[in-house]
Amino acid sequence: MTTAQQLGEDALISRLLTRVPCAHPEMLVGPGDDCAVVEHSRTLWQLLKTDAIVENIHFSSGENMTRVGWKAIARVISDFAAMGGYAQWFLITIAIPTNQSVLELENLYDGMSQCLKKYGGTLSGGETTSLPDGGKMVISIAATGIVEKRRLIKRSTARLGDCICVTGRLGGSLVGRHLDIVPRVNEARWLSNQNFATAMMDLSDGLAKDLPRLAQSSHLGFQIDSTKIPRHGSCNIEQAIGDGEDYELLFTVSPRKITALLREWPIHFPDTSLSCIGKMVDSADSMILHGGWDHFS
Amino acid sequence: MTTAQQLGEDALISRLLTRVPCAHPEMLVGPGDDCAVVEHSRTLWQLLKTDAIVENIHFSSGENMTRVGWKAIARVISDFAAMGGYAQWFLITIAIPTNQSVLELENLYDGMSQCLKKYGGTLSGGETTSLPDGGKMVISIAATGIVEKRRLIKRSTARLGDCICVTGRLGGSLVGRHLDIVPRVNEARWLSNQNFATAMMDLSDGLAKDLPRLAQSSHLGFQIDSTKIPRHGSCNIEQAIGDGEDYELLFTVSPRKITALLREWPIHFPDTSLSCIGKMVDSADSMILHGGWDHFS
Repeated sequence: MTTAQQLGEDALISRLLTRVPCAHPEMLVGPGDDCAVVEHSRTLWQLLKTDAIVENIHFSSGENMTRVGWKAIARVISDFAAMGGYAQWFLITIAIPTNQSVLELENLYDGMSQCLKKYGGTLSGGETTSLPDGGKMVISIAATGIVEKRRLIKRSTARLGDCICVTGRLGGSLVGRHLDIVPRVNEARWLSNQNFATAMMDLSDGLAKDLPRLAQSSHLGFQIDSTKIPRHGSCNIEQAIGDGEDYELLFTVSPRKITALLREWPIHFPDTSLSCIGKMVDSADSMILHGGWDHFS
Repeated sequence: MTTAQQLGEDALISRLLTRVPCAHPEMLVGPGDDCAVVEHSRTLWQLLKTDAIVENIHFSSGENMTRVGWKAIARVISDFAAMGGYAQWFLITIAIPTNQSVLELENLYDGMSQCLKKYGGTLSGGETTSLPDGGKMVISIAATGIVEKRRLIKRSTARLGDCICVTGRLGGSLVGRHLDIVPRVNEARWLSNQNFATAMMDLSDGLAKDLPRLAQSSHLGFQIDSTKIPRHGSCNIEQAIGDGEDYELLFTVSPRKITALLREWPIHFPDTSLSCIGKMVDSADSMILHGGWDHFS
Protein backbone atom coordinates (compact mmCIF):
# COMPACT_ATOMS: atom_id res chain seq x y z
CA MET A 1 0.00 0.00 0.00
CA THR A 2 1.40 3.42 -0.98
CA THR A 3 0.91 6.03 1.75
CA ALA A 4 0.47 9.77 1.38
CA GLN A 5 3.84 10.32 3.06
CA GLN A 6 5.67 8.04 0.63
CA LEU A 7 4.16 9.77 -2.37
CA GLY A 8 4.72 13.34 -1.10
CA GLU A 9 2.25 16.21 -1.10
CA ASP A 10 2.84 17.63 -4.59
CA ALA A 11 2.68 14.22 -6.29
CA LEU A 12 -0.40 13.29 -4.25
CA ILE A 13 -2.26 16.43 -5.27
CA SER A 14 -1.34 15.98 -8.95
CA ARG A 15 -2.58 12.41 -8.85
CA LEU A 16 -5.89 13.31 -7.18
CA LEU A 17 -6.53 16.25 -9.53
CA THR A 18 -6.49 13.98 -12.58
CA ARG A 19 -9.61 12.28 -11.23
CA VAL A 20 -11.92 15.28 -10.76
CA PRO A 21 -13.42 17.85 -13.17
CA CYS A 22 -11.23 20.93 -12.66
CA ALA A 23 -11.39 22.89 -15.90
CA HIS A 24 -14.11 25.32 -16.91
CA PRO A 25 -14.30 28.14 -19.47
CA GLU A 26 -15.13 30.61 -16.65
CA MET A 27 -12.11 29.56 -14.54
CA LEU A 28 -8.94 31.50 -15.42
CA VAL A 29 -6.74 29.89 -12.76
CA GLY A 30 -7.60 26.54 -11.20
CA PRO A 31 -6.10 24.23 -8.59
CA GLY A 32 -2.35 24.58 -8.00
CA ASP A 33 -2.00 28.37 -7.72
CA ASP A 34 -2.35 30.57 -4.60
CA CYS A 35 -6.03 31.15 -5.31
CA ALA A 36 -8.45 30.06 -7.96
CA VAL A 37 -9.57 32.88 -10.26
CA VAL A 38 -13.09 32.66 -11.67
CA GLU A 39 -15.38 34.93 -13.67
CA HIS A 40 -17.43 37.34 -11.57
CA SER A 41 -18.49 40.16 -13.87
CA ARG A 42 -17.27 42.13 -16.86
CA THR A 43 -14.71 44.00 -14.75
CA LEU A 44 -14.07 41.71 -11.75
CA TRP A 45 -12.55 38.32 -11.06
CA GLN A 46 -13.58 36.37 -7.99
CA LEU A 47 -10.75 34.73 -6.00
CA LEU A 48 -11.35 31.45 -4.13
CA LYS A 49 -9.08 30.07 -1.45
CA THR A 50 -9.10 27.38 1.21
CA ASP A 51 -6.46 26.93 3.89
CA ALA A 52 -6.23 24.72 6.96
CA ILE A 53 -4.17 24.73 10.13
CA VAL A 54 -3.92 21.80 12.52
CA GLU A 55 -3.04 21.67 16.22
CA ASN A 56 0.42 20.19 16.81
CA ILE A 57 1.29 20.64 13.12
CA HIS A 58 0.81 24.37 12.47
CA PHE A 59 0.49 25.54 16.07
CA SER A 60 1.23 23.99 19.46
CA SER A 61 -1.35 22.78 21.96
CA GLY A 62 -1.49 25.48 24.60
CA GLU A 63 -0.60 28.24 22.14
CA ASN A 64 -2.28 31.63 22.59
CA MET A 65 -5.45 30.99 20.55
CA THR A 66 -6.02 34.67 19.75
CA ARG A 67 -2.76 34.64 17.81
CA VAL A 68 -3.73 31.35 16.14
CA GLY A 69 -7.02 32.89 15.01
CA TRP A 70 -5.25 35.92 13.62
CA LYS A 71 -2.86 33.67 11.70
CA ALA A 72 -5.63 31.49 10.26
CA ILE A 73 -7.34 34.49 8.68
CA ALA A 74 -4.17 36.44 7.80
CA ARG A 75 -2.77 33.57 5.70
CA VAL A 76 -5.81 33.73 3.43
CA ILE A 77 -5.81 37.52 3.24
CA SER A 78 -2.15 37.39 2.26
CA ASP A 79 -2.97 35.02 -0.61
CA PHE A 80 -5.63 37.38 -1.95
CA ALA A 81 -3.27 40.35 -1.61
CA ALA A 82 -0.57 38.49 -3.55
CA MET A 83 -2.89 38.39 -6.55
CA GLY A 84 -3.70 42.09 -6.25
CA GLY A 85 -7.08 41.55 -4.60
CA TYR A 86 -8.83 41.70 -1.27
CA ALA A 87 -10.94 39.37 0.85
CA GLN A 88 -14.73 39.42 0.97
CA TRP A 89 -16.62 36.42 2.46
CA PHE A 90 -15.29 33.84 4.94
CA LEU A 91 -16.52 30.35 5.87
CA ILE A 92 -14.93 28.93 9.02
CA THR A 93 -14.95 25.21 9.76
CA ILE A 94 -13.61 23.88 13.06
CA ALA A 95 -13.29 20.21 13.99
CA ILE A 96 -12.79 19.96 17.75
CA PRO A 97 -12.58 17.31 20.46
CA THR A 98 -15.67 17.15 22.68
CA ASN A 99 -13.65 18.35 25.69
CA GLN A 100 -12.49 21.47 23.80
CA SER A 101 -12.38 24.53 26.07
CA VAL A 102 -15.00 27.10 25.03
CA LEU A 103 -12.78 29.90 26.33
CA GLU A 104 -10.01 28.86 23.92
CA LEU A 105 -12.50 28.90 21.05
CA GLU A 106 -13.66 32.37 22.05
CA ASN A 107 -10.04 33.50 22.01
CA LEU A 108 -9.61 31.88 18.58
CA TYR A 109 -12.59 33.78 17.21
CA ASP A 110 -11.39 37.02 18.81
CA GLY A 111 -8.13 36.69 16.90
CA MET A 112 -9.99 35.97 13.67
CA SER A 113 -12.19 38.97 14.34
CA GLN A 114 -9.24 41.31 14.89
CA CYS A 115 -7.78 40.30 11.54
CA LEU A 116 -11.13 40.56 9.69
CA LYS A 117 -11.74 44.02 11.12
CA LYS A 118 -8.26 45.25 10.26
CA TYR A 119 -8.10 43.99 6.67
CA GLY A 120 -11.76 43.61 5.75
CA GLY A 121 -13.82 40.46 5.43
CA THR A 122 -17.15 39.18 6.73
CA LEU A 123 -17.99 35.82 8.27
CA SER A 124 -20.81 34.39 6.18
CA GLY A 125 -21.04 30.83 7.46
CA GLY A 126 -19.28 27.90 8.96
CA GLU A 127 -19.44 24.46 10.40
CA THR A 128 -18.54 23.01 13.76
CA THR A 129 -17.98 19.28 14.02
CA SER A 130 -16.68 17.04 16.77
CA LEU A 131 -13.66 14.75 16.49
CA PRO A 132 -13.22 11.22 17.81
CA ASP A 133 -11.50 10.95 21.21
CA GLY A 134 -7.95 12.26 21.20
CA GLY A 135 -8.38 14.23 17.97
CA LYS A 136 -6.49 17.49 17.51
CA MET A 137 -8.19 20.70 16.41
CA VAL A 138 -8.46 21.36 12.67
CA ILE A 139 -9.28 24.91 11.54
CA SER A 140 -10.27 25.13 7.88
CA ILE A 141 -10.86 28.57 6.35
CA ALA A 142 -12.50 29.06 2.97
CA ALA A 143 -12.92 32.53 1.54
CA THR A 144 -13.81 34.48 -1.54
CA GLY A 145 -12.05 37.62 -2.66
CA ILE A 146 -12.32 40.15 -5.44
CA VAL A 147 -9.81 41.66 -7.82
CA GLU A 148 -10.42 44.10 -10.65
CA LYS A 149 -9.53 42.38 -13.92
CA ARG A 150 -6.96 45.04 -14.83
CA ARG A 151 -5.27 44.58 -11.43
CA LEU A 152 -4.92 40.77 -11.26
CA ILE A 153 -1.30 39.66 -10.83
CA LYS A 154 -0.39 36.02 -11.36
CA ARG A 155 2.85 34.26 -10.50
CA SER A 156 3.30 33.01 -14.05
CA THR A 157 3.82 36.31 -15.87
CA ALA A 158 7.36 37.39 -14.95
CA ARG A 159 9.42 38.47 -17.97
CA LEU A 160 13.05 37.92 -18.93
CA GLY A 161 15.23 40.63 -17.35
CA ASP A 162 12.65 41.66 -14.72
CA CYS A 163 14.03 42.70 -11.34
CA ILE A 164 13.11 40.45 -8.38
CA CYS A 165 11.85 42.32 -5.30
CA VAL A 166 10.76 41.37 -1.78
CA THR A 167 9.02 43.40 0.90
CA GLY A 168 10.07 43.42 4.54
CA ARG A 169 12.70 41.16 6.08
CA LEU A 170 12.90 37.38 5.82
CA GLY A 171 13.45 34.60 8.35
CA GLY A 172 12.72 34.05 12.01
CA SER A 173 9.27 32.50 11.73
CA LEU A 174 10.48 29.37 13.52
CA VAL A 175 11.14 31.35 16.70
CA GLY A 176 7.54 32.56 16.94
CA ARG A 177 7.11 35.24 14.30
CA HIS A 178 4.85 32.93 12.28
CA LEU A 179 1.88 33.84 14.49
CA ASP A 180 2.26 37.58 13.90
CA ILE A 181 1.62 37.73 10.18
CA VAL A 182 1.21 41.20 8.69
CA PRO A 183 -0.43 40.62 5.31
CA ARG A 184 0.90 43.19 2.83
CA VAL A 185 -2.55 44.19 1.60
CA ASN A 186 -1.97 47.91 1.08
CA GLU A 187 1.42 47.34 -0.53
CA ALA A 188 0.05 44.72 -2.92
CA ARG A 189 -2.98 46.81 -3.86
CA TRP A 190 -0.74 49.79 -4.56
CA LEU A 191 1.64 47.70 -6.67
CA SER A 192 -1.24 46.31 -8.72
CA ASN A 193 -2.88 49.69 -9.13
CA GLN A 194 0.38 51.36 -10.24
CA ASN A 195 1.01 48.46 -12.61
CA PHE A 196 4.49 47.87 -11.19
CA ALA A 197 4.46 44.10 -10.60
CA THR A 198 4.63 41.76 -13.59
CA ALA A 199 4.28 38.66 -11.37
CA MET A 200 3.67 38.23 -7.65
CA MET A 201 3.14 35.67 -4.88
CA ASP A 202 3.42 35.67 -1.11
CA LEU A 203 6.34 33.97 0.64
CA SER A 204 4.67 31.21 2.62
CA ASP A 205 7.24 28.41 2.29
CA GLY A 206 10.36 30.59 2.16
CA LEU A 207 12.31 32.16 -0.69
CA ALA A 208 14.22 28.92 -1.38
CA LYS A 209 11.00 27.13 -2.27
CA ASP A 210 8.77 29.94 -3.49
CA LEU A 211 11.11 31.75 -5.90
CA PRO A 212 11.69 28.57 -7.96
CA ARG A 213 7.90 28.18 -8.12
CA LEU A 214 7.42 31.70 -9.47
CA ALA A 215 10.27 31.19 -11.95
CA GLN A 216 9.06 27.80 -13.10
CA SER A 217 5.50 28.92 -13.67
CA SER A 218 6.89 31.88 -15.68
CA HIS A 219 9.16 29.46 -17.66
CA LEU A 220 12.22 31.41 -16.53
CA GLY A 221 15.16 31.16 -14.15
CA PHE A 222 16.55 33.59 -11.58
CA GLN A 223 19.86 35.01 -10.42
CA ILE A 224 20.12 36.32 -6.88
CA ASP A 225 22.69 38.50 -5.15
CA SER A 226 22.98 36.86 -1.76
CA THR A 227 24.10 40.01 0.02
CA LYS A 228 20.87 41.77 -0.93
CA ILE A 229 18.43 39.36 0.72
CA PRO A 230 16.86 41.31 3.62
CA ARG A 231 17.23 39.34 6.85
CA HIS A 232 15.06 39.65 9.91
CA GLY A 233 16.82 40.41 13.21
CA SER A 234 19.79 38.16 13.74
CA CYS A 235 18.75 35.57 11.14
CA ASN A 236 21.50 34.08 9.03
CA ILE A 237 21.01 33.59 5.31
CA GLU A 238 19.85 29.98 5.63
CA GLN A 239 17.10 31.07 8.01
CA ALA A 240 16.13 33.99 5.78
CA ILE A 241 15.61 31.79 2.75
CA GLY A 242 14.49 28.60 4.49
CA ASP A 243 12.36 29.34 7.55
CA GLY A 244 9.25 30.16 5.55
CA GLU A 245 6.01 31.73 6.76
CA ASP A 246 7.29 35.24 6.04
CA TYR A 247 4.09 36.29 4.23
CA GLU A 248 6.08 39.02 2.52
CA LEU A 249 5.47 39.81 -1.15
CA LEU A 250 7.80 38.37 -3.78
CA PHE A 251 7.32 40.14 -7.10
CA THR A 252 9.00 41.07 -10.35
CA VAL A 253 9.29 44.51 -11.95
CA SER A 254 10.32 45.62 -15.40
CA PRO A 255 13.86 47.14 -15.36
CA ARG A 256 12.35 50.22 -17.05
CA LYS A 257 10.16 50.81 -13.98
CA ILE A 258 12.45 49.83 -11.12
CA THR A 259 13.90 53.32 -10.61
CA ALA A 260 10.45 54.86 -10.35
CA LEU A 261 9.35 52.11 -7.93
CA LEU A 262 12.36 52.59 -5.64
CA ARG A 263 11.74 56.34 -5.63
CA GLU A 264 8.01 56.14 -4.86
CA TRP A 265 7.93 53.17 -2.47
CA PRO A 266 9.34 54.87 0.67
CA ILE A 267 6.94 57.79 0.19
CA HIS A 268 3.94 55.43 0.37
CA PHE A 269 5.33 52.75 2.70
CA PRO A 270 7.96 54.27 4.95
CA ASP A 271 7.61 51.38 7.43
CA THR A 272 7.98 48.51 4.95
CA SER A 273 11.37 47.94 3.41
CA LEU A 274 11.72 47.00 -0.25
CA SER A 275 14.70 45.07 -1.59
CA CYS A 276 15.78 44.19 -5.11
CA ILE A 277 17.57 40.88 -4.80
CA GLY A 278 18.21 39.76 -8.37
CA LYS A 279 16.73 39.32 -11.82
CA MET A 280 14.83 36.85 -13.96
CA VAL A 281 17.03 35.04 -16.47
CA ASP A 282 16.62 32.26 -18.99
CA SER A 283 15.72 29.03 -17.26
CA ALA A 284 18.92 27.42 -18.56
CA ASP A 285 20.91 29.99 -16.57
CA SER A 286 18.94 29.51 -13.37
CA MET A 287 20.61 28.93 -10.06
CA ILE A 288 18.27 26.70 -8.12
CA LEU A 289 18.05 27.12 -4.37
CA HIS A 290 18.14 23.71 -2.78
CA GLY A 291 17.86 25.19 0.66
CA GLY A 292 21.60 25.58 1.10
CA TRP A 293 23.58 28.69 0.44
CA ASP A 294 26.31 26.99 -1.60
CA HIS A 295 24.12 26.94 -4.65
CA PHE A 296 24.17 30.70 -5.05
CA SER A 297 27.71 31.88 -5.53
CA MET B 1 -13.57 25.15 32.33
CA THR B 2 -16.67 24.92 30.13
CA THR B 3 -16.25 22.42 27.29
CA ALA B 4 -17.86 22.46 23.86
CA GLN B 5 -19.85 19.35 24.76
CA GLN B 6 -21.29 20.92 27.92
CA LEU B 7 -22.38 24.02 26.05
CA GLY B 8 -23.88 22.19 23.06
CA GLU B 9 -23.38 22.95 19.38
CA ASP B 10 -26.11 25.56 18.84
CA ALA B 11 -25.19 27.56 21.94
CA LEU B 12 -21.50 27.34 21.06
CA ILE B 13 -22.07 28.68 17.57
CA SER B 14 -24.27 31.53 18.85
CA ARG B 15 -21.62 32.48 21.35
CA LEU B 16 -18.79 32.46 18.81
CA LEU B 17 -20.78 34.42 16.23
CA THR B 18 -21.18 37.36 18.60
CA ARG B 19 -17.42 37.87 18.45
CA VAL B 20 -16.88 38.16 14.69
CA PRO B 21 -18.11 40.63 12.03
CA CYS B 22 -20.95 38.75 10.32
CA ALA B 23 -23.27 41.40 8.93
CA HIS B 24 -22.86 43.24 5.66
CA PRO B 25 -25.25 45.19 3.41
CA GLU B 26 -24.45 42.81 0.53
CA MET B 27 -25.23 39.68 2.60
CA LEU B 28 -28.93 38.73 2.50
CA VAL B 29 -28.56 35.56 4.61
CA GLY B 30 -25.60 35.03 6.93
CA PRO B 31 -24.41 32.34 9.35
CA GLY B 32 -27.11 30.02 10.71
CA ASP B 33 -29.00 29.12 7.53
CA ASP B 34 -28.31 26.27 5.05
CA CYS B 35 -26.16 28.56 2.92
CA ALA B 36 -25.11 32.17 3.06
CA VAL B 37 -26.68 34.32 0.35
CA VAL B 38 -24.60 37.24 -0.93
CA GLU B 39 -24.89 39.77 -3.75
CA HIS B 40 -23.49 38.58 -7.07
CA SER B 41 -25.10 40.73 -9.75
CA ARG B 42 -28.35 42.51 -10.52
CA THR B 43 -30.14 39.23 -11.23
CA LEU B 44 -28.14 36.61 -9.31
CA TRP B 45 -27.37 35.71 -5.70
CA GLN B 46 -24.24 33.78 -4.85
CA LEU B 47 -24.65 30.93 -2.34
CA LEU B 48 -21.78 29.99 0.02
CA LYS B 49 -21.58 26.76 1.96
CA THR B 50 -19.05 24.79 3.97
CA ASP B 51 -19.56 21.28 5.27
CA ALA B 52 -17.25 18.78 6.94
CA ILE B 53 -17.30 15.04 7.50
CA VAL B 54 -14.99 13.22 9.90
CA GLU B 55 -13.85 9.60 9.97
CA ASN B 56 -15.46 7.64 12.82
CA ILE B 57 -18.04 10.40 13.28
CA HIS B 58 -19.75 10.70 9.88
CA PHE B 59 -18.36 7.56 8.26
CA SER B 60 -16.60 4.45 9.54
CA SER B 61 -12.92 3.66 9.08
CA GLY B 62 -12.83 1.04 6.34
CA GLU B 63 -15.95 2.41 4.64
CA ASN B 64 -16.07 2.39 0.82
CA MET B 65 -14.36 5.72 0.14
CA THR B 66 -16.02 6.22 -3.24
CA ARG B 67 -19.36 6.37 -1.45
CA VAL B 68 -17.89 8.71 1.19
CA GLY B 69 -16.67 11.06 -1.57
CA TRP B 70 -20.08 11.04 -3.22
CA LYS B 71 -21.71 11.88 0.10
CA ALA B 72 -19.30 14.73 0.89
CA ILE B 73 -20.18 16.52 -2.35
CA ALA B 74 -23.87 15.55 -2.46
CA ARG B 75 -24.56 17.10 0.97
CA VAL B 76 -23.44 20.48 -0.31
CA ILE B 77 -25.29 20.17 -3.62
CA SER B 78 -28.44 19.31 -1.66
CA ASP B 79 -28.07 22.51 0.39
CA PHE B 80 -27.81 24.63 -2.76
CA ALA B 81 -30.80 22.84 -4.30
CA ALA B 82 -32.87 23.51 -1.16
CA MET B 83 -32.50 27.24 -1.80
CA GLY B 84 -33.49 26.88 -5.45
CA GLY B 85 -29.93 27.10 -6.77
CA TYR B 86 -27.12 25.00 -8.14
CA ALA B 87 -23.46 24.44 -7.34
CA GLN B 88 -20.59 26.09 -9.16
CA TRP B 89 -17.06 26.07 -7.61
CA PHE B 90 -15.69 23.60 -5.04
CA LEU B 91 -12.71 23.83 -2.68
CA ILE B 92 -11.74 20.51 -1.09
CA THR B 93 -9.64 20.35 2.07
CA ILE B 94 -8.46 17.03 3.46
CA ALA B 95 -6.56 16.53 6.71
CA ILE B 96 -5.03 13.06 6.68
CA PRO B 97 -2.68 10.92 8.77
CA THR B 98 0.77 10.46 7.19
CA ASN B 99 0.11 6.73 6.72
CA GLN B 100 -3.11 7.42 4.78
CA SER B 101 -3.55 5.00 1.87
CA VAL B 102 -3.28 6.79 -1.48
CA LEU B 103 -5.64 4.27 -3.05
CA GLU B 104 -8.35 5.20 -0.55
CA LEU B 105 -7.87 8.88 -1.40
CA GLU B 106 -8.15 8.10 -5.10
CA ASN B 107 -11.40 6.28 -4.39
CA LEU B 108 -12.59 9.27 -2.34
CA TYR B 109 -11.89 11.64 -5.24
CA ASP B 110 -13.55 9.25 -7.71
CA GLY B 111 -16.74 9.42 -5.65
CA MET B 112 -16.55 13.21 -5.49
CA SER B 113 -15.97 13.29 -9.23
CA GLN B 114 -19.01 11.12 -9.96
CA CYS B 115 -21.21 13.49 -8.00
CA LEU B 116 -19.71 16.64 -9.55
CA LYS B 117 -20.19 15.22 -13.05
CA LYS B 118 -23.77 14.18 -12.39
CA TYR B 119 -25.00 17.40 -10.77
CA GLY B 120 -22.52 19.99 -12.04
CA GLY B 121 -19.66 21.64 -10.21
CA THR B 122 -15.96 22.22 -10.80
CA LEU B 123 -13.04 21.71 -8.45
CA SER B 124 -11.24 25.04 -8.27
CA GLY B 125 -8.78 24.49 -5.43
CA GLY B 126 -8.04 22.74 -2.22
CA GLU B 127 -5.63 22.00 0.53
CA THR B 128 -4.02 18.83 1.82
CA THR B 129 -2.59 18.81 5.31
CA SER B 130 -1.22 16.10 7.54
CA LEU B 131 -2.53 15.22 10.99
CA PRO B 132 -0.59 14.32 14.13
CA ASP B 133 -0.14 10.57 14.75
CA GLY B 134 -3.41 8.76 15.28
CA GLY B 135 -5.53 11.52 13.74
CA LYS B 136 -8.70 10.62 11.84
CA MET B 137 -9.45 11.96 8.37
CA VAL B 138 -11.32 15.27 8.12
CA ILE B 139 -12.89 16.19 4.77
CA SER B 140 -13.98 19.81 4.56
CA ILE B 141 -15.87 20.98 1.47
CA ALA B 142 -16.47 24.64 0.69
CA ALA B 143 -18.45 25.63 -2.36
CA THR B 144 -20.15 28.48 -4.11
CA GLY B 145 -23.46 28.22 -5.89
CA ILE B 146 -25.75 30.46 -7.89
CA VAL B 147 -29.45 31.18 -7.74
CA GLU B 148 -31.47 33.62 -9.81
CA LYS B 149 -32.88 36.28 -7.48
CA ARG B 150 -36.46 35.52 -8.49
CA ARG B 151 -35.90 31.81 -7.71
CA LEU B 152 -34.32 31.99 -4.25
CA ILE B 153 -36.29 30.07 -1.62
CA LYS B 154 -35.51 30.56 2.05
CA ARG B 155 -36.70 28.51 5.00
CA SER B 156 -38.11 31.57 6.75
CA THR B 157 -40.89 32.49 4.32
CA ALA B 158 -43.62 29.89 4.94
CA ARG B 159 -47.10 31.43 5.34
CA LEU B 160 -50.01 30.62 7.64
CA GLY B 161 -52.14 27.88 6.11
CA ASP B 162 -49.46 26.65 3.67
CA CYS B 163 -49.40 22.91 2.98
CA ILE B 164 -46.26 21.07 4.15
CA CYS B 165 -44.76 18.72 1.54
CA VAL B 166 -41.83 16.29 1.43
CA THR B 167 -40.22 14.50 -1.51
CA GLY B 168 -39.30 10.82 -1.48
CA ARG B 169 -39.48 8.54 1.53
CA LEU B 170 -37.99 9.14 4.96
CA GLY B 171 -35.89 7.05 7.32
CA GLY B 172 -33.39 4.26 7.01
CA SER B 173 -30.21 6.32 6.79
CA LEU B 174 -28.82 4.60 9.87
CA VAL B 175 -28.75 1.25 8.06
CA GLY B 176 -26.52 2.58 5.28
CA ARG B 177 -28.69 4.75 3.06
CA HIS B 178 -26.87 7.87 4.28
CA LEU B 179 -24.03 7.21 1.82
CA ASP B 180 -26.35 7.05 -1.20
CA ILE B 181 -27.68 10.58 -1.17
CA VAL B 182 -29.70 11.63 -4.22
CA PRO B 183 -29.79 15.44 -4.06
CA ARG B 184 -33.16 16.65 -5.38
CA VAL B 185 -31.63 19.21 -7.72
CA ASN B 186 -34.05 18.91 -10.64
CA GLU B 187 -37.07 18.80 -8.35
CA ALA B 188 -35.93 21.86 -6.40
CA ARG B 189 -35.11 23.85 -9.53
CA TRP B 190 -38.50 23.02 -11.01
CA LEU B 191 -40.29 24.01 -7.78
CA SER B 192 -38.45 27.33 -7.68
CA ASN B 193 -39.00 28.03 -11.36
CA GLN B 194 -42.74 27.26 -11.16
CA ASN B 195 -42.98 29.39 -8.02
CA PHE B 196 -44.63 26.60 -6.05
CA ALA B 197 -42.56 26.59 -2.84
CA THR B 198 -42.99 29.42 -0.34
CA ALA B 199 -40.25 28.05 1.94
CA MET B 200 -37.83 25.14 1.58
CA MET B 201 -34.94 23.29 3.22
CA ASP B 202 -33.36 19.87 2.88
CA LEU B 203 -33.93 17.19 5.52
CA SER B 204 -30.46 16.60 6.90
CA ASP B 205 -31.22 16.05 10.59
CA GLY B 206 -34.63 14.43 10.17
CA LEU B 207 -38.17 15.79 10.06
CA ALA B 208 -38.40 15.90 13.87
CA LYS B 209 -35.56 18.42 14.04
CA ASP B 210 -35.80 20.17 10.69
CA LEU B 211 -39.54 20.94 10.50
CA PRO B 212 -39.44 22.88 13.81
CA ARG B 213 -36.50 24.86 12.40
CA LEU B 214 -38.41 25.81 9.26
CA ALA B 215 -41.48 26.69 11.34
CA GLN B 216 -39.53 28.70 13.89
CA SER B 217 -37.66 30.73 11.31
CA SER B 218 -41.03 31.46 9.63
CA HIS B 219 -42.51 32.43 13.04
CA LEU B 220 -45.20 29.74 12.64
CA GLY B 221 -46.14 26.32 13.95
CA PHE B 222 -47.12 23.11 12.16
CA GLN B 223 -49.71 20.36 12.33
CA ILE B 224 -48.86 16.99 10.86
CA ASP B 225 -51.01 14.00 9.95
CA SER B 226 -48.83 11.12 11.08
CA THR B 227 -50.33 8.63 8.64
CA LYS B 228 -49.19 10.71 5.70
CA ILE B 229 -45.46 10.75 6.45
CA PRO B 230 -43.83 8.70 3.66
CA ARG B 231 -41.66 5.96 5.15
CA HIS B 232 -38.74 4.28 3.47
CA GLY B 233 -38.86 0.47 3.20
CA SER B 234 -39.77 -1.10 6.51
CA CYS B 235 -39.01 1.97 8.62
CA ASN B 236 -41.35 2.73 11.47
CA ILE B 237 -42.50 6.25 12.13
CA GLU B 238 -39.78 6.98 14.71
CA GLN B 239 -37.13 6.06 12.16
CA ALA B 240 -38.83 8.10 9.44
CA ILE B 241 -38.83 11.27 11.50
CA GLY B 242 -35.69 10.70 13.55
CA ASP B 243 -33.01 8.91 11.52
CA GLY B 244 -32.03 12.04 9.60
CA GLU B 245 -29.77 12.32 6.56
CA ASP B 246 -32.70 11.86 4.18
CA TYR B 247 -31.65 14.80 1.97
CA GLU B 248 -35.22 15.03 0.74
CA LEU B 249 -36.87 18.41 0.22
CA LEU B 250 -39.16 19.80 2.90
CA PHE B 251 -41.20 22.70 1.54
CA THR B 252 -44.41 24.64 1.93
CA VAL B 253 -47.00 25.45 -0.76
CA SER B 254 -49.91 27.84 -0.81
CA PRO B 255 -53.25 25.94 -0.48
CA ARG B 256 -54.34 27.73 -3.66
CA LYS B 257 -51.54 26.00 -5.58
CA ILE B 258 -51.45 22.56 -4.02
CA THR B 259 -53.93 20.98 -6.46
CA ALA B 260 -51.95 22.18 -9.45
CA LEU B 261 -48.71 20.93 -7.86
CA LEU B 262 -50.10 17.47 -7.17
CA ARG B 263 -51.39 17.27 -10.75
CA GLU B 264 -48.14 18.36 -12.41
CA TRP B 265 -45.57 16.69 -10.14
CA PRO B 266 -45.94 13.07 -11.36
CA ILE B 267 -45.73 14.24 -14.98
CA HIS B 268 -42.31 15.78 -14.35
CA PHE B 269 -41.00 13.46 -11.64
CA PRO B 270 -42.62 10.04 -12.03
CA ASP B 271 -39.83 8.42 -9.96
CA THR B 272 -39.93 10.79 -6.97
CA SER B 273 -42.93 10.61 -4.68
CA LEU B 274 -44.48 13.77 -3.25
CA SER B 275 -46.44 13.80 0.01
CA CYS B 276 -48.48 16.46 1.72
CA ILE B 277 -48.12 15.80 5.41
CA GLY B 278 -49.75 18.75 7.13
CA LYS B 279 -50.06 22.50 7.26
CA MET B 280 -48.49 25.59 8.79
CA VAL B 281 -50.46 26.98 11.73
CA ASP B 282 -50.04 29.73 14.27
CA SER B 283 -47.02 29.04 16.47
CA ALA B 284 -49.27 28.89 19.54
CA ASP B 285 -51.03 25.87 17.97
CA SER B 286 -47.83 24.07 17.08
CA MET B 287 -47.22 20.48 17.98
CA ILE B 288 -43.51 20.16 18.61
CA LEU B 289 -41.78 16.96 17.62
CA HIS B 290 -39.45 15.95 20.43
CA GLY B 291 -38.29 12.92 18.53
CA GLY B 292 -41.03 10.66 19.88
CA TRP B 293 -44.27 9.86 18.15
CA ASP B 294 -46.49 10.53 21.20
CA HIS B 295 -46.28 14.22 20.57
CA PHE B 296 -48.25 14.01 17.35
CA SER B 297 -51.67 12.55 17.99
